[in-house]
Amino acid sequence: MSRLLLVGTGLIGGSFALAARRAGVFTHVAGVDVDATARAEALRLGIVDVASADLPKHLVADAVCIATHPSAVPDVLNEVIQSGIDPSTPLFDVASVKGGVLAAIAGKLGRVPVNFVPCHPMAGGERRGPGAASADLFAGSRVFIAPGPDTLPAAVTAVRKWWLACGAQVTTTTPDEHDARVALTSHLPHLLAFVYARTIASSSDTALSDYTGAGFRDFSRIAASDPGLWRDIVEGNAAEIETGLAFAVEHAQRFLAMIRDARFDELERELVIARNARLRFENDRDG
Amino acid sequence: MSRLLLVGTGLIGGSFALAARRAGVFTHVAGVDVDATARAEALRLGIVDVASADLPKHLVADAVCIATHPSAVPDVLNEVIQSGIDPSTPLFDVASVKGGVLAAIAGKLGRVPVNFVPCHPMAGGERRGPGAASADLFAGSRVFIAPGPDTLPAAVTAVRKWWLACGAQVTTTTPDEHDARVALTSHLPHLLAFVYARTIASSSDTALSDYTGAGFRDFSRIAASDPGLWRDIVEGNAAEIETGLAFAVEHAQRFLAMIRDARFDELERELVIARNARLRFENDRDG
Repeated sequence: MSRLLLVGTGLIGGSFALAARRAGVFTHVAGVDVDATARAEALRLGIVDVASADLPKHLVADAVCIATHPSAVPDVLNEVIQSGIDPSTPLFDVASVKGGVLAAIAGKLGRVPVNFVPCHPMAGGERRGPGAASADLFAGSRVFIAPGPDTLPAAVTAVRKWWLACGAQVTTTTPDEHDARVALTSHLPHLLAFVYARTIASSSDTALSDYTGAGFRDFSRIAASDPGLWRDIVEGNAAEIETGLAFAVEHAQRFLAMIRDARFDELERELVIARNARLRFENDRDG
Repeated sequence: MSRLLLVGTGLIGGSFALAARRAGVFTHVAGVDVDATARAEALRLGIVDVASADLPKHLVADAVCIATHPSAVPDVLNEVIQSGIDPSTPLFDVASVKGGVLAAIAGKLGRVPVNFVPCHPMAGGERRGPGAASADLFAGSRVFIAPGPDTLPAAVTAVRKWWLACGAQVTTTTPDEHDARVALTSHLPHLLAFVYARTIASSSDTALSDYTGAGFRDFSRIAASDPGLWRDIVEGNAAEIETGLAFAVEHAQRFLAMIRDARFDELERELVIARNARLRFENDRDG
């Protein structure tokens, strides 16, 4: 019997449990969630076999997935370590930021445990909770593994195999490289979507919603994401996000000045540069 | 026999021709396009029965759809009027801006023809050309009709019926109301998507495209839109777009200051306001 301890039974953790169990990686899943509704739902949906509000006193597991908000990872990891779990058992998180979480772990525990494998599955979007979990969530999606120089190779290999079994494409990177890149490809789009939604929140025109099409829906979908989670992500990757957002504000101000001064030829040249960058990204992914 | 003259055989015009013909509204479609490749493609795909580069000398048609870029509408409309077409024949455009186009028409022709019905089908996104046209494009999508006080009621009724036959939901509005609203729900998202794509265009990190997920793709999809078309749209609705973009820049600067000063509680409150606005829009549309 292969046992997974899942801390946080929401969309990402729940989907990992469902996918890994379907792939035969784990035969028993024990769930921990502070939210009673989530526990009941995770049990009902077969995501977990047992569920509790706290970590078990004497922890026996072959893997521990910490699928909480980023800010909760250090405390949970500390409790897991304190529980006397075998120090070679692979432990991993799913947070969208790595550097900030690792610094907080080192601050809390004195060092990052060598059996802790930092992971970031890039999937999920704005949905949340066990009810949104799916065994197919990671099929074809990207998972980043960002081990440190001391991380146990056997733990990395095991965690990597589990994500592959879930159907993911696994990319190994470093925490710094990861955070700099997702700041631009994920965190900045989320913040700009929130900025846009914050802008229309100020409008009192109740008929506005009659004027939305597919462009609006796709562009602003990620603004429906969990504010608490995104506060955590921004806090955990603040320097990189600040840099990216500052550049975006600069470009927005340049666009604004061109519109104000009726410099539309210049604006069109900027739109061409932007469009070509977007097309290149699409091609790079397809290619 | 019911004859449509289609000026501009691209995505929107081509889809209208296909959908309206399938619904039995028109039995013959004559296409005009300055682009020889588009003409050949429109013929091959059965979008048009005949195609030419210029308007026919003696124009006989039961409807004229002007599906060019917004800036070309006044000239095309002028030519159509000069061709001696029956002055009660419904003529309509598909431009995403109404006020700017109507002002340009009045500037060119002295007045807006009473048989001209300003339309804006909110569909299509970033695709273009006859090859992207589909008889299903307007099914369930929104079409705005923005007639003036002098527009012939019979022309409005006819154009409305054709869009309904294409499967669209038709909303009647005024040009000013239309432009103020789409500035916020469509033009601002497009500009912010272009701003974002312009920001990542400056990065020399070729591995960035490995770090994109569904959030990136949906958020930035509209940045792949036609720069020439969007220059026209911005020029045609500059005042409203300037106002919206200025508000967005203000909010982005506030977010940036909160991140810089580590005021994450405050940032989270802003994200909640943004998220709630986005959810309200979704609910309004579903309800």
